Amino acid sequence: MKRILAFLLSINILATFTFADEGMWTFDNPPLKQWKERYNFEPSKEWLDNVRLASPKVNNSSAGFVSPNGLIATNHHVAAGYIERVSSKERDLLKNGFYARTQAEELKIPDASASVLMSFDNITERVHNAAKAGKTDAEMAAKRSAEMSAIEKECTASSAGLRCEIVSFYSGGEYWLYKNKVYRDVRLVMAPEEQAAFFGGDYDNFVYPRHDLDFTFLRAYENDKPAATPNYFKWSAKGAADGEFILVSGYPGSTARLLTVAQLTYQRDIGNPLQKKVWELRRKALENYAKKGDEQLRQANSGMRGFANSLKRLEGQQDGLLNPRNFARKVAEEKDLRDKLAAKPDLDKQYAPAWKSIGDAYAKLPAMANRLAFSNISASRLATFAQQIVTHSIEVAKPDNTRYPEFRDSRLDAFKASLASPAPIYLDMEEAALTSWLEEGLKVLGVNDPFIKAAIGDAEPSEVARRAVRETILKDPAARRALLDGGAVAIAASTDPMVTLARRVEPIVRELRAWNEANITNVETANGTKIAQARFAVYGKTMPPDANSTLRIEYGKVLGYDEDTTLIPYKTTFFGLYDRWLSFNGKSPFDLPKSLVDRRDKIDLSTPLNFVYSADTIGGNSGSPVINRKGELVGLNFDSNNQKLSNRYWYIEENEGSRAVGVHSAGIIEALRKVYDADGLVKELMGS
Amino acid sequence: MKRILAFLLSINILATFTFADEGMWTFDNPPLKQWKERYNFEPSKEWLDNVRLASPKVNNSSAGFVSPNGLIATNHHVAAGYIERVSSKERDLLKNGFYARTQAEELKIPDASASVLMSFDNITERVHNAAKAGKTDAEMAAKRSAEMSAIEKECTASSAGLRCEIVSFYSGGEYWLYKNKVYRDVRLVMAPEEQAAFFGGDYDNFVYPRHDLDFTFLRAYENDKPAATPNYFKWSAKGAADGEFILVSGYPGSTARLLTVAQLTYQRDIGNPLQKKVWELRRKALENYAKKGDEQLRQANSGMRGFANSLKRLEGQQDGLLNPRNFARKVAEEKDLRDKLAAKPDLDKQYAPAWKSIGDAYAKLPAMANRLAFSNISASRLATFAQQIVTHSIEVAKPDNTRYPEFRDSRLDAFKASLASPAPIYLDMEEAALTSWLEEGLKVLGVNDPFIKAAIGDAEPSEVARRAVRETILKDPAARRALLDGGAVAIAASTDPMVTLARRVEPIVRELRAWNEANITNVETANGTKIAQARFAVYGKTMPPDANSTLRIEYGKVLGYDEDTTLIPYKTTFFGLYDRWLSFNGKSPFDLPKSLVDRRDKIDLSTPLNFVYSADTIGGNSGSPVINRKGELVGLNFDSNNQKLSNRYWYIEENEGSRAVGVHSAGIIEALRKVYDADGLVKELMGS
Repeated sequence: MKRILAFLLSINILATFTFADEGMWTFDNPPLKQWKERYNFEPSKEWLDNVRLASPKVNNSSAGFVSPNGLIATNHHVAAGYIERVSSKERDLLKNGFYARTQAEELKIPDASASVLMSFDNITERVHNAAKAGKTDAEMAAKRSAEMSAIEKECTASSAGLRCEIVSFYSGGEYWLYKNKVYRDVRLVMAPEEQAAFFGGDYDNFVYPRHDLDFTFLRAYENDKPAATPNYFKWSAKGAADGEFILVSGYPGSTARLLTVAQLTYQRDIGNPLQKKVWELRRKALENYAKKGDEQLRQANSGMRGFANSLKRLEGQQDGLLNPRNFARKVAEEKDLRDKLAAKPDLDKQYAPAWKSIGDAYAKLPAMANRLAFSNISASRLATFAQQIVTHSIEVAKPDNTRYPEFRDSRLDAFKASLASPAPIYLDMEEAALTSWLEEGLKVLGVNDPFIKAAIGDAEPSEVARRAVRETILKDPAARRALLDGGAVAIAASTDPMVTLARRVEPIVRELRAWNEANITNVETANGTKIAQARFAVYGKTMPPDANSTLRIEYGKVLGYDEDTTLIPYKTTFFGLYDRWLSFNGKSPFDLPKSLVDRRDKIDLSTPLNFVYSADTIGGNSGSPVINRKGELVGLNFDSNNQKLSNRYWYIEENEGSRAVGVHSAGIIEALRKVYDADGLVKELMGS
Repeated sequence: MKRILAFLLSINILATFTFADEGMWTFDNPPLKQWKERYNFEPSKEWLDNVRLASPKVNNSSAGFVSPNGLIATNHHVAAGYIERVSSKERDLLKNGFYARTQAEELKIPDASASVLMSFDNITERVHNAAKAGKTDAEMAAKRSAEMSAIEKECTASSAGLRCEIVSFYSGGEYWLYKNKVYRDVRLVMAPEEQAAFFGGDYDNFVYPRHDLDFTFLRAYENDKPAATPNYFKWSAKGAADGEFILVSGYPGSTARLLTVAQLTYQRDIGNPLQKKVWELRRKALENYAKKGDEQLRQANSGMRGFANSLKRLEGQQDGLLNPRNFARKVAEEKDLRDKLAAKPDLDKQYAPAWKSIGDAYAKLPAMANRLAFSNISASRLATFAQQIVTHSIEVAKPDNTRYPEFRDSRLDAFKASLASPAPIYLDMEEAALTSWLEEGLKVLGVNDPFIKAAIGDAEPSEVARRAVRETILKDPAARRALLDGGAVAIAASTDPMVTLARRVEPIVRELRAWNEANITNVETANGTKIAQARFAVYGKTMPPDANSTLRIEYGKVLGYDEDTTLIPYKTTFFGLYDRWLSFNGKSPFDLPKSLVDRRDKIDLSTPLNFVYSADTIGGNSGSPVINRKGELVGLNFDSNNQKLSNRYWYIEENEGSRAVGVHSAGIIEALRKVYDADGLVKELMGS
């Protein structure tokens, strides 16, 4: 108790400052002061522009251009879905790896894209002004939404070739218009075997010391030629050194550091446990399917891996929330802000009610949580297509600015492209996943639940799923397109069992979405905006906004740490990889692909393989370039250790052992040369 | 809370059984039933005799004969004090290692010995019958003591050449007469560099995965020739395999698993914190001394290492006691025994008061704890000699059977031999350690404390220590012997400042020892005996006695474990050693000696180095042979992992990740051959 009190006291002093190396910073507000003071680092505008323009978003994760000819480095696990798409039963590139010895051999990946943030403009005032015309939270939300839709439309019309996107920061405290250049032709250049990239499997995920060659090379094309990408990272052959200052650019997915205590309490007590249950059910369905044979295992592999990864992360986050010391820190932070507000009566009157409003909203959520979580059919890709086409037909009938955001005109091209994907769909797996999902939904929601009645009625879940998957024509991209183009009329007339399933559940899903918007998200936005403004008023803009899959820059240093009573080193070497392989007598998931077994004596085993650093990263930063002060790529970020998992809710200081984990740039070169005979690729990387 | 309740319920069922692989068993009661049922292992009497006779006690720790010619394998850290004794400033064998290429080069170690348990006889009835003549605890203790003294004397007279020793088990529930053959000429054959044996230093102590060549070879001599040791362990070149059943023989020092809740509560709340403080103070004194230079560091090294080791272990034990779930288990165990007793009124009347008596005794201890801990001068070896000589002169004036046990006739030869030790004494270090100790004693006990008054009076601690260490003649073994022989008269006449210091504090130390015996240990023995008898009456002799540095046999299997979210393998390899070295860029204590650096390319790096197993070992088992069912040596036990540290108070099941750590027999052979060019030794080990 004494320790907690001392901690709370220290927090009060620290509440107005960010912690050392904290923050996923937007490029409009990089932490120049901290960089200068702590690391004597003063980047030029050109340096920052180059990092931004060399950091494409790939598969909703991070990557870096690493040559002037569109070459992209990212993680194998980021590109795994891509690699799967160009694999087949006969040619399993996930398992066996791939290297295109010539450009002609580079494999075009269906639906792959890479987007670069070209410009960003603050439109906060315009959005806030528009919202002021509304009287209730819902009215304000509608006004805001309409204004954003208009801005996006204007932008799309005036920015030929760029994708316009409005992003909101600080729970609506700021709005920005982002323009992105999108490369829609992305090809596979080189991938190691999954077992080299994911050595140790789920066991070693979020674990360090680590020994993974988690990298893949792609290439952006334009007009069927390698794209010209003058902004790229030079590859450092030497790579990251102990103690070195490094930066990380990329697209961290989501943090929740500015949430209120009421919101965090809900996550801890209901939201996270429920999410865990949902993911476990979906993973279990895939696991059961994968047990049927090698081919089923191949099909289910990336899905299982995704859920395993998500679950391990969620459990770490939840452990953080369950730690009373951490939670006390959030309580103390909120108290500090509210106390400081209370000292300024005019501000207090304006902002203080926001916390109560959010608390009241969240009080309604537990009763609805199961319905919100289980009333969907997204466990199946075919069902997801059907659902999207049905919802699309309803939404596009409305004025653009009142539609669901994902069906606004500016997004329709991307949506149509996703429907056209020729990526393989595994019917047996679809059926297994959908059956399991509906069975679990029935158990949780009960026979009288509106979603269950609409989805299943008196039938058996397995029968509904079997018919819908087996008999639907939506396996064919052309049929999806035809149904989309046929619109409401074609949908109403359809007897396709997947389409009718989607049609039956659509009103239920829509109603729940409306309830959630009216009762939760609109309240969160309106009051989150107020809290953000209160925070600006009290502390200034000293904190970066929560991560939301927009481009950020993070920083820290290469640094080992203490764990229990011993020291964990800043890097591992190829010696460690072979030790771990042999220590388990090569038992899966600690088996190695033949290439690594065969080439052991060719490799300089002292070459660094993985390394750790204190940068403030989170999921979505996978594939991020780790760069030195010269802007050279010294590693590829691919994971965090266990100690860092709860950094969704707060920054964890480096002395608590929280670290990001990267593949070392020297290790990648050694593997390309000695294991994969990829000398051409090495030449391109080294610019020689 | 629910989990704790469920756990308590399960404990009630389990209380009458030992857990899987639990127990440090005496050779009179090996767990034949468990071995047969769990591992289908039924050793012959010859097998057990061979293990016993091949397991000498060395430096109060464990070892194994590994050739018919007296060759002994043990840990480097067990032999470190020995190696230091044959080192000098000019020839630092601890640092540089040693290999005797011929027998003539083997180095005789002052005061080294190895003892083998030749026979054991149950004398419980005789001792208990003698005690019955006493009416109070103190009287009973005196009767017991006198009887044991008589038995020892008889034995010594009738067993020429053997050392007779009475050991007590189950808090006095059993007494045994052990006869030991003692080899008093032990020589150093081979030792690797300390940095190879202790790679990772204190950081990696009690840590696994691990990479230490913690072995040393000694040889027992008789009549200036290698001793004939027909009972020895054959060396297994292949060594321990994953999942293999193994056994461990050796001398576990001390467990406290049969203590009452009152005794454990005292340890947790007062005893352990106080012990920690004492060891930290003594370590700190050595650390400060070691900072003065390389030679000081060399002198203080093994002492610091000893305290660091003891402290890390103590902290782990204390963590265990502080874990409410563990403590609840002990509470439940005690409750189960007392409940079962209560169901048998005749037994209950006889035994139930024992718990209250112990509880009442321990209630008096806190007020005396600081005095008992700080009223001594054993921080200095010279002071310890003086203290022993003074006490000896008082004790030998009494009849043998009323003396302190360590001054009974049967022990006097060993005592005199220890006084004659020519091992170097470092005066600067002695002075530093004694000064620091007296200063701390003064702080803790205050100027009016009897011990402080006697030891320091009005002087400065530093002045007392300086004079005593500088001016004493006891540095010279001959002077110690002369003073001993001069007896009470010579001591009374002495003006040697170390002798007078010892003379002044002797009555205080004696008074405290008497208080402790009367109020604590006699009560513990009398009532511990009753509780042991109650346990026999309720459960039978199903539990082995607490460890007490007597020979035991333990067992388990070679087995990796889970830690956090990943798997820890059953073994490490030389690959891992080089990985850890390079991962820290060779920074101390992760530096390697030149031999290992130079011979890297000669070693088969896939050779197993260290490995883990589930046997129930504890401090004192260092150096224990790890053997397979054929009785071949597959490894040398040298440590436990963190998870196992609290096994002083209870067995920790294998699924909690508690493991013993050994050096793999194949790794030792590989190092001897490829790193140390010790082919002669390998030939002897392999019997070729």
